[in-house]
Amino acid sequence: MIAPFQIASGPRVRFGRGEAAFAGEEARALGIKRPMIITDAGVASCGALGPLTRGLEKAGLDFHLYDQVEADPSDESMARARKTFEGSGCDGIIAAGGGSSIDTAKAAGVLVGNGGKIHDYYGFGNVPGPLPTLITVPTTAGTGSEVTCSAIVTDSIQKIKAVMASPLMFARVAVVDPELLSLMPTPIAAGTLMDALTHAIESMTSRKANPWTRNLCLQAIANIGQYARRFVENPADPEPAGAISLASTWAGHCFTNTSLGIVHSLSHPIGVYHHIHHGTSNAIFLPPVMRFNLQAVRGDYAQIAPLLQNPSEADRVDPRDESAPQVAINSVRSLVRDIGISATLREAGITSEEGFETMAKDAAKSPQVLTNPVHATEEDMLSLLRAAMNG
Amino acid sequence: MIAPFQIASGPRVRFGRGEAAFAGEEARALGIKRPMIITDAGVASCGALGPLTRGLEKAGLDFHLYDQVEADPSDESMARARKTFEGSGCDGIIAAGGGSSIDTAKAAGVLVGNGGKIHDYYGFGNVPGPLPTLITVPTTAGTGSEVTCSAIVTDSIQKIKAVMASPLMFARVAVVDPELLSLMPTPIAAGTLMDALTHAIESMTSRKANPWTRNLCLQAIANIGQYARRFVENPADPEPAGAISLASTWAGHCFTNTSLGIVHSLSHPIGVYHHIHHGTSNAIFLPPVMRFNLQAVRGDYAQIAPLLQNPSEADRVDPRDESAPQVAINSVRSLVRDIGISATLREAGITSEEGFETMAKDAAKSPQVLTNPVHATEEDMLSLLRAAMNG
Repeated sequence: MIAPFQIASGPRVRFGRGEAAFAGEEARALGIKRPMIITDAGVASCGALGPLTRGLEKAGLDFHLYDQVEADPSDESMARARKTFEGSGCDGIIAAGGGSSIDTAKAAGVLVGNGGKIHDYYGFGNVPGPLPTLITVPTTAGTGSEVTCSAIVTDSIQKIKAVMASPLMFARVAVVDPELLSLMPTPIAAGTLMDALTHAIESMTSRKANPWTRNLCLQAIANIGQYARRFVENPADPEPAGAISLASTWAGHCFTNTSLGIVHSLSHPIGVYHHIHHGTSNAIFLPPVMRFNLQAVRGDYAQIAPLLQNPSEADRVDPRDESAPQVAINSVRSLVRDIGISATLREAGITSEEGFETMAKDAAKSPQVLTNPVHATEEDMLSLLRAAMNG
Repeated sequence: MIAPFQIASGPRVRFGRGEAAFAGEEARALGIKRPMIITDAGVASCGALGPLTRGLEKAGLDFHLYDQVEADPSDESMARARKTFEGSGCDGIIAAGGGSSIDTAKAAGVLVGNGGKIHDYYGFGNVPGPLPTLITVPTTAGTGSEVTCSAIVTDSIQKIKAVMASPLMFARVAVVDPELLSLMPTPIAAGTLMDALTHAIESMTSRKANPWTRNLCLQAIANIGQYARRFVENPADPEPAGAISLASTWAGHCFTNTSLGIVHSLSHPIGVYHHIHHGTSNAIFLPPVMRFNLQAVRGDYAQIAPLLQNPSEADRVDPRDESAPQVAINSVRSLVRDIGISATLREAGITSEEGFETMAKDAAKSPQVLTNPVHATEEDMLSLLRAAMNG
C-alpha cells in the first residue's frame, strides 16, 4: 500500500533551449513592469544573461541588475539585496544564476513582502505573506532551487546554514534554458551536477520518498549517469546540457517534496567553515553516506546501480545481483574522479580535523537527519567527516 | 535535443488512503467557511462521501450538498449548479465524484467568478478571472480531472462536447483517496480505468509529449497493466486501488500538459449522441486508433507492450522485438475483454451507422486532432467509427 504523501503546487516550468528569451514575456504576463535581476558578478560579466536581458528589452521592460550575490549567501547579503530592491522602483524579481542567486532572491523577497529579519523565517512554514512576483532562471544545473520553496541562509551570528521554506517561496515560473549553461567553467559544471545527483539520490531514499518523486528521481539519475561526463567536457553541447538541466530540475522538484538526507547535513557546516563549493562537498560526502545508509536502502541502490555506471562500460550490473548496491557507490566514486573534482576533504584543501566536533554537532541538529533513511547521531557525523577526510 | 515544453503549476496533490478525511481541514486552511459539495445522486446516496463529510464536520464546517450532477453534463446543468451555488451562501467548492462532477464544479465556478454563459469560455485560455476556491476529491480512478485545468461540456445547442480550459480552472488542492473507490460498481471501475489508460497512452504519444510527462505516463501504464484486473475484481482492496488511483492522477497531470489524441475526438461525439460511458467508448476506440497511429509511434508502443501484458503471462515481450508494438494493441484488447466492458460499439448497443458522418465531422474538428501523432481527416474518422462498430 502506498503511504500518504503530498506533491506541492510548484512553479510553472518552461523548459527548453532558447526559452530564456521568453522570460521577459513571462514577466510582463505576470504584471511585472520593472524586474530586478538578482545574480552574481561572475554570471553578470560572462555574458550568460545575454538571452535573458535581450528578451526583457524585447518585451519592453526596463530592469535593474543587481549582481552582488555572494557564494554561500549570508543573512546580511540577503538583507542588502532587499534594501536594493526597495530603493530600485522594481516590482518583481528575476533570479538568474545558481543556487546562491536564487536563494538570495527568495530570502530578499520574503523580507520585502514581510519585513523583519531573515532569522524570523527560519524553519518550515514561517513566512506569513507573499513575496514580490518571482521568476527563476537557473544558469547552473544543480541547485534545483528554481523549483523549490526553500532557501539556504548562512547565518552570520550562529555560523550555521539555516533552511527557510514555505510554499509562498515558490517562484511563479521557472524558465530552465540549457543554453545558459554553455559558458559554465568546468569545475562549476562538475560541482553543480554532483549537487543534482545528490538531490536525486537523497530524495529517492528519503523517508518521505513516494512513487511520484521516486519515479522522477530515477529518471534524473539515469540522465546524470548517461550524460555527466559529456556535459562536463562541453556544457555547450545541446544533448548533454538538456539532459543534465532537466535532471537538476527534476531533482529539485522531488526534494522540495521529500526533503534530503545527511549528505546535506554535513555539506552545510563544511560550507560555513571552509567555503567549499556546495556541489563539491556533496560529491565528497555522498559515497561515505551511501555506505552508511547501505543496509537500509539496498534495493534503491541496486536499482540505480546500472544507471550510474559509466556509459562506456559494456557490462551493466543486474539490479538483482548481490553486488549491485555496492556498484552504485563505486560508480559515484568513479564519476567524481572522471569529472575532476575533489574526492576527499583533504583534496579540497582541508588539512586538519579542527572544528569537526562543532560541525558534527551542527550536522546532527540539521532537519535532513529526520528524512535520512538511517538515524545518524553526532558520533556518526563525526565518523563520516573523518571518513570523508581521506576517502 | 529535448524540444521546448511546459509543465503547468497544477493543484497541490494530497494522496493516500484515508486522506479524504482531511479535505475539511484543507478547506478551512484555504479560507473556505461554507463549501458546496458538488456531486451526483449515485455517489451521494451510496455512502462514498462519508469520510469527506465527517471530515468537514470535524473541521467545524457547515456545507451544502448539491447532488444534481448529470452524466455527460450539459451547459444547462452546469448553469444550474452555478445558480444553486449563488443562492447557497457558500464560498468555496468541493468537487467530489467522477469527471462529470468535477467538470461541473469547474464550469459552475467559472460562471460564478466571471458571469456570462458557459459557451463564452470554450477553448483554451478564455477565462478572464478566478473561480471560487476549488478542492477536488475524485471518487473514481479515471478522469484525472482533479488535476487538470479543463472541463468537458455537452453543448445542448451545438450537440458537441466542447472543451473549456484555463490555468485558472486548476483546483487548489486535489485530495486523492483510493479508499473512496471502494464502493464503485464493477462496470464503473472498469470503464473509468480505461479512461485513465487512454489518457496515459494518448498523452505519451501526443505531439506535445515531453520527457517529464512520458516518464509519468509510463509509470501510469505500468500500474494499470499490473493492477487493472485485481482492481476491477475488488476496488476495496488497498493495493490495486492505490496503484490505479495514482495512475489516474498521473495520467491527468500528464494530459493537461500535452493534450490528448483522437480516441477522445471520437469518444466525445459518441457520448453526445449515444450516451455511452466515456471510459467505455475510450476502451472501444483505443485499439483501432492505436492501429491507426502505429507506424508513427512504434517505439512508444514497443516500450509499453511488456507493461500492458496480463501479469499472469510468464512470457514478457522484449520491446526490441518486431512484434512488440502489436503486442501492446493486443494487450489492450485482452484487458478490455478481461474486465468485462464492451469491446465494440455494437456491443455497447449501437445498432446502425446512422449519424456516423456527423460524428466523423465533429471528431475531425476536435482540438485533439492537433496533438494526435498522425493527422486524421474526416474520412479517417469515419473509417475508425466503422472499425469500432464490430471490432
